Amino acid sequence: MTQTKQEIAVGYQGTEGAYSQLAAKHHFAWARAQLRCVGYHSFREMLEAVKAGEVDVAVLPIENSIAGSINDSYDLLADAGLSLVGEEFQPIAHCLIGAADVPVADIRRVYSHPVALAQCGEFLETLEDCHVEAFIDTAMAVERVKRDADPTQAAIASEEAAALHGLPILRRDIADHPENYTRMVMVAREPAHHEQDVHCKTSLIFSTIHEQGALARCIAIFAERGLNLTKIESRPKPHTPFEYIFYVDFEGNVDRETTQAALRDLEAVTTFLKVLGSYPIGRTKAE
Amino acid sequence: MTQTKQEIAVGYQGTEGAYSQLAAKHHFAWARAQLRCVGYHSFREMLEAVKAGEVDVAVLPIENSIAGSINDSYDLLADAGLSLVGEEFQPIAHCLIGAADVPVADIRRVYSHPVALAQCGEFLETLEDCHVEAFIDTAMAVERVKRDADPTQAAIASEEAAALHGLPILRRDIADHPENYTRMVMVAREPAHHEQDVHCKTSLIFSTIHEQGALARCIAIFAERGLNLTKIESRPKPHTPFEYIFYVDFEGNVDRETTQAALRDLEAVTTFLKVLGSYPIGRTKAE
Repeated sequence: MTQTKQEIAVGYQGTEGAYSQLAAKHHFAWARAQLRCVGYHSFREMLEAVKAGEVDVAVLPIENSIAGSINDSYDLLADAGLSLVGEEFQPIAHCLIGAADVPVADIRRVYSHPVALAQCGEFLETLEDCHVEAFIDTAMAVERVKRDADPTQAAIASEEAAALHGLPILRRDIADHPENYTRMVMVAREPAHHEQDVHCKTSLIFSTIHEQGALARCIAIFAERGLNLTKIESRPKPHTPFEYIFYVDFEGNVDRETTQAALRDLEAVTTFLKVLGSYPIGRTKAE
Repeated sequence: MTQTKQEIAVGYQGTEGAYSQLAAKHHFAWARAQLRCVGYHSFREMLEAVKAGEVDVAVLPIENSIAGSINDSYDLLADAGLSLVGEEFQPIAHCLIGAADVPVADIRRVYSHPVALAQCGEFLETLEDCHVEAFIDTAMAVERVKRDADPTQAAIASEEAAALHGLPILRRDIADHPENYTRMVMVAREPAHHEQDVHCKTSLIFSTIHEQGALARCIAIFAERGLNLTKIESRPKPHTPFEYIFYVDFEGNVDRETTQAALRDLEAVTTFLKVLGSYPIGRTKAE
């Protein structure tokens, strides 16, 4: 993570050309020559690799602009004892990628990740007599199309995955919603520290005490100190339908006194509070 | 919607045996003899049918305990001019359903809805040399298994879908997370009115004015009046990364003065406010 000639090993879920790997390359573009990306089978394995020191940092998808928060990721972060050190808004631009440059109407099998398939539902319905098959990641679906070399097969994945395998794009922008991005967080063993002039965001998981107005008191703690919320989400706790876990992001830096004071006050009105980390705010538009 | 002998026509997305249809049957159990369920291809078609008077009410999935809020449903509700009149927490218990009673190890193709496939990811990884294919709904996947009558095929769907087609369940509870339910709302043309002793919930969509502490003021409006929030979620607005839409549910009834006063105050600090409706609170556990 230092700006020396040392290698930076970044874990991501999937195989080469996956959206997570694109986010890693973009986030660590300043260190491209020293960057080594390592694909993992699952989020859990990837975070274990961070803990074990196999990689320096991992890229974890945490929410998608269409599908919403990725609760699996939050569950893993709540238990992992790791720190968020950055975020990246990765545009998701699904393409239909073929084995050969054929008309879309010739396609009889489409492969991709289940979430990508769901996001292209309207397009897929326009394909007549076409089977849809789920793969563990989008890039792996492209590999399959390449290997089979059958012109009636196609995969849904990124433009970069097509380029990587030298396969033609049969149709661009096939998702139902044109505005589609996934927010990825960078997860490391230790928290990062930032100068006061770096505009930071802090992420929290907390549960309120079970009492009327408890959430309003939590929210007021941020407002009173001028700390803007950028995300709030309640999630029912399993087995306890009237208790909630909250996911909150706010503009603040745990290295600064205002944020520390807010977190001290928050501790008094929550039954559980986990500070996931402070990190520079990412941009939602790719340059 | 009256308790006479009149037929009640309920729209749902999917085909017979879909989880949405199970929710409809459970919600309108008191009217079973008069219940007519009508399957639609998409949420949009189903809500159009409510507007057109083809059905009295539609069952719309709005959030899942694992996947979170279904933003598509919120987008449709924001525009539809329809009213929420009820909610149902539908347990989702995925089963592997075969064409014949064979060992799970014999299965080579599994069919289901993309979300169901994603929720059974860990189980599917244990199946060697097995293809996974996405279908528009879980019940349709079961129909396919029945039609093909190939003992190496299986579908992921509800126990009820298996019973409906007389097919054997090869394995129960195959989802990664045992606690899995979908919250379905009942959508009608006109709002329903409830007596003061009926414990109601009200659902809102709103945007705050773009100003420091605006959300905290909104939340305080509920807290000051003792109106408990049961859900809050921020969602970034497309193209305006620093503005948010909020989805809020609170315990209150628009027919009561306290709730009306809160909504009047809320109107003053929001740029957009849509009251989706008040309805009796559903239970999270099936009896």
